[in-house]
Amino acid sequence: MAKKVVIVGGGFAGIKAARELGNKKDVEVILIDRRNYHLFQPLLYQVATAGLSPAEISGPIRGILSRYQNISVYLDNVQGVDLANRKLKTTTKEISYDYLMLACGAKHSYFAHPEWEENAPGLKTLEQATEIRRRLLVAFERAETEANAEIQKQHLTFVIVGGGPTGVELAGAIAEISRHTLMEDFRHIDPSRTRVLLIEAGPRILAAFDPTLSRRAARDLEDLGVQIWTNTRVTDVRSNSVVLGDEVIKASTILWAAGVQPSSLNKTLGVPLDRSGRVIVEKDLSIKGHPEAFVVGDQAYFPTEDGRGLPGLGPVAMQQGLHVAKEILGEIKGQPRKEFKYFDKGQMATIGRRKAIVQIGSFKMGGFLAWLIWLFIHVYYLIGFKNKFFVIWQWAYAYLTFKRGARLIVDKEWRSQPKETQ
Amino acid sequence: MAKKVVIVGGGFAGIKAARELGNKKDVEVILIDRRNYHLFQPLLYQVATAGLSPAEISGPIRGILSRYQNISVYLDNVQGVDLANRKLKTTTKEISYDYLMLACGAKHSYFAHPEWEENAPGLKTLEQATEIRRRLLVAFERAETEANAEIQKQHLTFVIVGGGPTGVELAGAIAEISRHTLMEDFRHIDPSRTRVLLIEAGPRILAAFDPTLSRRAARDLEDLGVQIWTNTRVTDVRSNSVVLGDEVIKASTILWAAGVQPSSLNKTLGVPLDRSGRVIVEKDLSIKGHPEAFVVGDQAYFPTEDGRGLPGLGPVAMQQGLHVAKEILGEIKGQPRKEFKYFDKGQMATIGRRKAIVQIGSFKMGGFLAWLIWLFIHVYYLIGFKNKFFVIWQWAYAYLTFKRGARLIVDKEWRSQPKETQ
Repeated sequence: MAKKVVIVGGGFAGIKAARELGNKKDVEVILIDRRNYHLFQPLLYQVATAGLSPAEISGPIRGILSRYQNISVYLDNVQGVDLANRKLKTTTKEISYDYLMLACGAKHSYFAHPEWEENAPGLKTLEQATEIRRRLLVAFERAETEANAEIQKQHLTFVIVGGGPTGVELAGAIAEISRHTLMEDFRHIDPSRTRVLLIEAGPRILAAFDPTLSRRAARDLEDLGVQIWTNTRVTDVRSNSVVLGDEVIKASTILWAAGVQPSSLNKTLGVPLDRSGRVIVEKDLSIKGHPEAFVVGDQAYFPTEDGRGLPGLGPVAMQQGLHVAKEILGEIKGQPRKEFKYFDKGQMATIGRRKAIVQIGSFKMGGFLAWLIWLFIHVYYLIGFKNKFFVIWQWAYAYLTFKRGARLIVDKEWRSQPKETQ
Repeated sequence: MAKKVVIVGGGFAGIKAARELGNKKDVEVILIDRRNYHLFQPLLYQVATAGLSPAEISGPIRGILSRYQNISVYLDNVQGVDLANRKLKTTTKEISYDYLMLACGAKHSYFAHPEWEENAPGLKTLEQATEIRRRLLVAFERAETEANAEIQKQHLTFVIVGGGPTGVELAGAIAEISRHTLMEDFRHIDPSRTRVLLIEAGPRILAAFDPTLSRRAARDLEDLGVQIWTNTRVTDVRSNSVVLGDEVIKASTILWAAGVQPSSLNKTLGVPLDRSGRVIVEKDLSIKGHPEAFVVGDQAYFPTEDGRGLPGLGPVAMQQGLHVAKEILGEIKGQPRKEFKYFDKGQMATIGRRKAIVQIGSFKMGGFLAWLIWLFIHVYYLIGFKNKFFVIWQWAYAYLTFKRGARLIVDKEWRSQPKETQ
């Protein structure tokens, strides 16, 4: 009798685990996700800045797993887990399990100010990416027809809050768009009047990197025209302005890249969480007292020596997903549990369309070659040959022509006669 | 002093006219569109059926016209035209003109039942295409997890109202998706249980074609598993069902491809309209009494011998846009007006991924070769090399693998904490 394994979440960890369990005769797998697609989050900023289309960085989960006959994929929303009775509740049904792996990822945190989201979208989902794209493109369109110089300046000011990799990638891409892509397309905008402001509360951007690399990235960003304000705390986000203590910056476009929180499912589990809400897992990634239930990726706090846990990176999630799948298969064969060991593959961030920084252990590197490494690794990990091919092609095209292909301002309303209530 | 030409609408006619007027020293051109992109409508059904991405059949109008220094593009909404004083009003400003060309196209008509739209979206915009895609994909996902056989059957029933080219293209593509693409991706659906129903009020589908071709298309559709009901009138469209006189068909997905009406701007002009609301234009495409104001494409009724006017096809719009641009340039040079003559390039419709019908004058053709002609012509007319390349590649890929790349169910809500009112 095959064991029933339920995986919640089709991100890096979920897909990796499912593939490992696929077509293994000892297990029957159900993968549940709210979305019908796997999203390659590291390239989401490219959708937000009109470089790539949503379908180029995502693939239908069913398609990715279709060759595995023992895997069923459900488009559904998990509402709660009954750890004691080994079952979970979705919007449509109850599902029991022998093994459970939670891999629901993270969403943005506005530090107790959820009302800021309306004025400063974050970048975690495709919907948010296309909303950011819409806001960016509309800002330029409004600037083009605006006669009042003050208001035009507001439309051409872009504030990015948070100097981590996402904030840096957004700032670099927006600076490049406004300098190059738009130069020949607008008649009444002086692209040099565009102002891109990257705001970071800490003393330097890209704090997870070595100080020399983070300084290098700052110089590269400034070359592109980005202004970097470190040690600066956002005290309010309003419609069309950001408040920094006693200073108010007027900007039509404000983007949020300043913090994440794990899935809100965590609070319903009744198990110990760390300060940021992640489930504190055992050395084998299981929940204490529930060896059949695992939590991985951004949703989990895996104890490390420095007490900060492992970072919220794709490689961590993939390695953990793979580890759990192997544990399950091993246990069914009677093998003992093993501790999870993270193999640090390093980290990287890209700045504009031809610079990046790469740090692998004590190896540090910046510039164009680092960008090529960044490009190679990101394209390599994109799931599905077709997407890889497309993304490389789009990049080559954008690189050679300075054009961006996906500059569509798409409405949310599809009706030709909108209802009055809307 | 250059004459000021205002073009309203960046469709086939608007782009064609703008390109002709581009970089001509006698004119200064303003092109106004509600959207920032030109849409290649003939391939919209491919977006609705997850074959292509929105960015692959559309290009930013600014990018298309960026090489023409005498053209300004405004993203704006025209609210009224003051023909007597030669100016128009948009949401943000008033614009005067020496010459005006209205090319606003058409939207769907629900024959005095606008309330049907909610339950049966039409296919005229990208938003509608992605909404249809969402409904199609969600229907299959719901069927996969539905235990009740009756409800599952409802999820797997797809009704397309209207047997013109769009209805035929949608029906063929949906039948193929359910037979091939989904065969290996779903575990609990028997794809052969899918029912695709094409409903036509007239005695045959594709009535604009020769009866032999329309019969051939019907046979090809039936081969793909489509059921065709001719002489059948829809009397009500409800949520999850279509009423045909005394018969009720339960279906989660109902699509509307049964009629169009011109832009509602027409009613505000105060000029003679035909029965379906199109502006009746003179032989030179101008409005009677206003030789400086032209109306073209789907928005205009150009008198023909049979009294039905020219059909709402891309070639008509392109030829008319070009004609108007040439008239304007000619008149500035002192040449007299010329009558517009439509050069009939024939018409075609595609059925699934390897059959089509083509009719050029008395030449008639069906099958695979017709499909290759259809493919070549559609890809040839796609604006921009990059899109052409992508579309061919996507097609080749879909053709060889039976996969569809753009199977994303994308929400309209981007906020991570939706407002309560929504």
